[in-house]
Amino acid sequence: MSSNRRYETPEEVEAAFYEAFERADLAATMNVWADQDELVCIHPQGPRLVGFDSIRDSFAQIFAAGISLRVRVDHGHHYHSQALAVHCVVEHIEVVGEKSSPPPINSTNVYAYTDDGWRMIAHHASPGEAAGAIENPHLHTLH
Amino acid sequence: MSSNRRYETPEEVEAAFYEAFERADLAATMNVWADQDELVCIHPQGPRLVGFDSIRDSFAQIFAAGISLRVRVDHGHHYHSQALAVHCVVEHIEVVGEKSSPPPINSTNVYAYTDDGWRMIAHHASPGEAAGAIENPHLHTLH
Repeated sequence: MSSNRRYETPEEVEAAFYEAFERADLAATMNVWADQDELVCIHPQGPRLVGFDSIRDSFAQIFAAGISLRVRVDHGHHYHSQALAVHCVVEHIEVVGEKSSPPPINSTNVYAYTDDGWRMIAHHASPGEAAGAIENPHLHTLH
Repeated sequence: MSSNRRYETPEEVEAAFYEAFERADLAATMNVWADQDELVCIHPQGPRLVGFDSIRDSFAQIFAAGISLRVRVDHGHHYHSQALAVHCVVEHIEVVGEKSSPPPINSTNVYAYTDDGWRMIAHHASPGEAAGAIENPHLHTLH
């Protein structure tokens, strides 16, 4: 895997992740992830993906759609320790050329300090409340 | 707030959280959370809740529904540092007395080491892929 860019802070990793996502740059997107198998990525309403290869394949599929996107990130809440950092953010994604925007996305991004500097190790994204109808009313009441 | 039980590990906090949830025990559920304002809780398909009071109100509302639940947690992936821990787990929730179960829930649970021992500081839960129809097809392709 490519690992030619080193990030000195979790914020640098996060900025690089969203910039790469906007550019649909697969190598740059995957460069922010740690070089380890213990990675988790959940795209909105998607399956739980585990491991570098599964995650790379999912981004390759997203980028292959050829949709031009802009992402604005509300930085929300950050929790930092020496070796681990968690950012609970809200992503506002705009599809270039479309008038209506998808609902905001709640994302929990987890970063670890590795031999290669800070890297992403988990990304859990899910639609915010405006996502539309509730498929199963129990989901609102039971948890 | 009640803070009479101290947890020595993130695993103890997590076990206490799910046990309290099954018992619909509001005081015990809230005892696992840190005594600070910088808390985030996202219930499946629910809004992003920030702060102890909002989170307490949400659990009070859930428990007021009087539904009896059982939760089995697949422990998934754990990331630990001295002061912060992240557990990416899958929750299998069963509604007692109902034959069909809601879809599994992907949950990212974040714990911090505080003056009161380990406590929960963030809980981000969202339905897994089996949750039903996709409301907005872009959500699958764009992120």
